[in-house]
Amino acid sequence: MAELILHEYAPSGNCYKIRLTSAHLGIALERRGYDIVTGETRTPEFLATVNANGRIPVLQIGERFLPESNAACVWLAHGSDMIPADRFDQADMLRWMFWEQYNHEPNVATLRFWLAFIGEDKLTDDQRRALAAKRAAGEAALTLMDEHLATRAFFVGDRLSLADIALYAYTHVAGEGGFDLARWPAVAAWVDRVAALPGHISIAD
Amino acid sequence: MAELILHEYAPSGNCYKIRLTSAHLGIALERRGYDIVTGETRTPEFLATVNANGRIPVLQIGERFLPESNAACVWLAHGSDMIPADRFDQADMLRWMFWEQYNHEPNVATLRFWLAFIGEDKLTDDQRRALAAKRAAGEAALTLMDEHLATRAFFVGDRLSLADIALYAYTHVAGEGGFDLARWPAVAAWVDRVAALPGHISIAD
Repeated sequence: MAELILHEYAPSGNCYKIRLTSAHLGIALERRGYDIVTGETRTPEFLATVNANGRIPVLQIGERFLPESNAACVWLAHGSDMIPADRFDQADMLRWMFWEQYNHEPNVATLRFWLAFIGEDKLTDDQRRALAAKRAAGEAALTLMDEHLATRAFFVGDRLSLADIALYAYTHVAGEGGFDLARWPAVAAWVDRVAALPGHISIAD
Repeated sequence: MAELILHEYAPSGNCYKIRLTSAHLGIALERRGYDIVTGETRTPEFLATVNANGRIPVLQIGERFLPESNAACVWLAHGSDMIPADRFDQADMLRWMFWEQYNHEPNVATLRFWLAFIGEDKLTDDQRRALAAKRAAGEAALTLMDEHLATRAFFVGDRLSLADIALYAYTHVAGEGGFDLARWPAVAAWVDRVAALPGHISIAD
């Protein structure tokens, strides 16, 4: 296999998804860190060589660069049982991963970043005005997850898939954004279930 | 194949993605329309049977329901040449599809919906305040596409894939949201290229 380098900001849940997938698969990653708070992913060099979109994570596979956390997870898990073999289940896994990027990450992850990394007193007026809407949308996302998990152990089929990885990354640290997971007991139980699996690593590893 | 029903709002680009994929593959879809402007996807019946997330499109496959436009396209195109066979190219296709949902749709599609479907005079104060940021983010998305397309005919590999379908849907009607595609000539040429392919159908079909 080509050498794999993860271009990342370690506390980012999107970057953690890739490390967690690799850990479950036993794939070694070299890690290269950038401080997104000080703009290290917006330098001309980063934009020209790593990702024109100015974002991490990017998975470097030999000489090629693959942005977007969920796409990198799919590349890593290719042919493994972290991607269901069944046609419907495979698409349903992607359904949760697209939903994560559209409905979950912009709310649950963004509030964590604003409150725990930037700090509420340093938010712009626009960010401050968006807080309530993002809080409501994040709560709606957690409620949808809770209803789905009320009758099943994992998001798709009966075992861990990339849908769980994608959603675990920011859900298990949602408390840092002010979401109390005790309100969503099926989500809290699933978080414990994922963390107890063999091969699991923490976001701080 | 199980009977396929597309639960949709016809002018939505997300719904059009599924019809366009089906047209290229020669797959027949039954269509069932809902008016999102009057809330027909938020009724108790829709939430209980079609999509707890209250959104269209949903692809119904026999008795099962698959939300998220890009996931539905992947289900439809399974095993076809609209999904590259190569492992990297397959993940790279998904990379553009995740990027579409995170960076493109919330800006390019949302401005079209606000300006051409709701009407600028009927926007809420929050929406009005968000216009400038969404305009800038939409322009940045189109610029990234333009740079990528400057040296290639399609997003991944050398032929149409679901990455093109996902990005074409809202890009070709970006003018309705006030984006003048003449500013992004490689994007404009790619729009013409996609529309000229055999099997293409218009969003109004």
